[in-house]
Amino acid sequence: MSDAKLIGLDWGTTSCRAYLIGADGGVLDRQLDGPGILKAEGHFGPWLDSMIGSWIATHGAAPVILSGMIGSRQGWKEAPYATCPAGAGDIVTALARIEWAELTIALVPGLSTENDAMPDVMRGEETQIFGALALSGESDGLFLLPGTHSKWAEVRGNRILSFRTFMTGEVFGALKEHTILGRLMRGDAPDADAFARGIHEGAALGSPGALLNRMFATRTYGLVDRLAGTALADYLSGLLIGAEVAEAARHAKSAVTIIASPVLAQRYSDALRLLGHASTLAPEDCVAAGHWRIARAAGLC
Amino acid sequence: MSDAKLIGLDWGTTSCRAYLIGADGGVLDRQLDGPGILKAEGHFGPWLDSMIGSWIATHGAAPVILSGMIGSRQGWKEAPYATCPAGAGDIVTALARIEWAELTIALVPGLSTENDAMPDVMRGEETQIFGALALSGESDGLFLLPGTHSKWAEVRGNRILSFRTFMTGEVFGALKEHTILGRLMRGDAPDADAFARGIHEGAALGSPGALLNRMFATRTYGLVDRLAGTALADYLSGLLIGAEVAEAARHAKSAVTIIASPVLAQRYSDALRLLGHASTLAPEDCVAAGHWRIARAAGLC
Repeated sequence: MSDAKLIGLDWGTTSCRAYLIGADGGVLDRQLDGPGILKAEGHFGPWLDSMIGSWIATHGAAPVILSGMIGSRQGWKEAPYATCPAGAGDIVTALARIEWAELTIALVPGLSTENDAMPDVMRGEETQIFGALALSGESDGLFLLPGTHSKWAEVRGNRILSFRTFMTGEVFGALKEHTILGRLMRGDAPDADAFARGIHEGAALGSPGALLNRMFATRTYGLVDRLAGTALADYLSGLLIGAEVAEAARHAKSAVTIIASPVLAQRYSDALRLLGHASTLAPEDCVAAGHWRIARAAGLC
Repeated sequence: MSDAKLIGLDWGTTSCRAYLIGADGGVLDRQLDGPGILKAEGHFGPWLDSMIGSWIATHGAAPVILSGMIGSRQGWKEAPYATCPAGAGDIVTALARIEWAELTIALVPGLSTENDAMPDVMRGEETQIFGALALSGESDGLFLLPGTHSKWAEVRGNRILSFRTFMTGEVFGALKEHTILGRLMRGDAPDADAFARGIHEGAALGSPGALLNRMFATRTYGLVDRLAGTALADYLSGLLIGAEVAEAARHAKSAVTIIASPVLAQRYSDALRLLGHASTLAPEDCVAAGHWRIARAAGLC
């Protein structure tokens, strides 16, 4: 069992996933329920020990690489953003370092870009994208990482040319929990018809202002019994995702690669299909493949 | 002092304004700090007494007319919606009645309409619009009642043809208080430049999805010090209002009539001006003129 070559952690705001990686870049073991940086704040070293200590006891000290919000101002140490367009080589040049106990830890920087004079940033998604590229052998494509903040990234020749953040998930949560739109909602059971209706209505809206109007249908459809209370959450979710996908996939020429948990990936895959776009799903462990690719290029393993 | 002819109450979700109205429809006295229906729930009669009791003691019992959410399912009694297009005569036909102590109380129904297969509703704004029409002597126009939920109503020949609700104010509050966008905001001091920047950016967005992307600039402008923390709230407010106004005033051919408190009216007047539209401000007491107009047409006074 001495073929462990690298330990990679995808350490985000609310969760942490750790991977023990073997000589061929394959995942030997994983621990997916670590604490996010909000919980671990001020105690990152001890939390790291608790997550990977048994691996080191068994396999000896392997190099460690961290990606995600752990490299932000609120994380363990700030790793300044690398600038798009950026390939794995640019990430390697910008790696930050942390010393902790006997370990030498590399910290993956996030990426920054600018679209229409708007700055944008990501931390952690770049590692997942480089991993997905390594696993598929492809070098181009449109990558979607949905979630609280969806990231859509354009890749050419193994470099991330640019990307855009859509606040869809967080906006949905704020509208559902903290506006009148949640008032008539009943339950969380999925409603595919209501979701599809939202997708089509959201994609068909002609302006951003029309979204501020149409979201009120989440209330009025309920008031006049045009949608059941159990359908309203999925209608609103579809409306926002439909608006997002129509904008972000506008110029997509081939299948969109989705990097997400199966449930969330299915949701966006459905949305893309309803709007005439194909999609493929990246393997769930692709972040570990990204850690491996970056660490190899940096000569860490 | 026996020239008091009517008592009108604009009784909404979070506030209540009461007016003592004279023989010519003019306001003799007003009380603007009554409790909204959320606070008065279950005790509407006693709250009414406390607001208008001294007027009745002085002037004798005048007829009472109520408008606003007091006529909703959550109010004193539900007054079913009248349907657009609707003039003051249609409101009169649909008035509901409440008996309380010695008083006979008329309850103004709300209005419902439908745009692009989306139902929409208002309660209380119709009375303000009919009052503004009565005071100005005009019979056509685009009326804007901004707030938590902005209402834009199209009037022809003294009838409300249709209207649309925009959730701008409530969405702003939810984003500011309950998403990452509030994190870097500092203070509430107005920032006219940031507001204007938001207005122009919001109006220029090409799709609803682009709004879900651009609102993230509230964070990234702060991260890269392109806007000060004190400017971020007004930037986001401008972004949403700019999107709303660009959509809602798209077909406006003459000045938009704004019915609002002076501060809020100024904000929307600025937004309209920045986007090339003129506006006029309706008198603050126009809801009382609406009460007078409807009560006269109904033969109540």
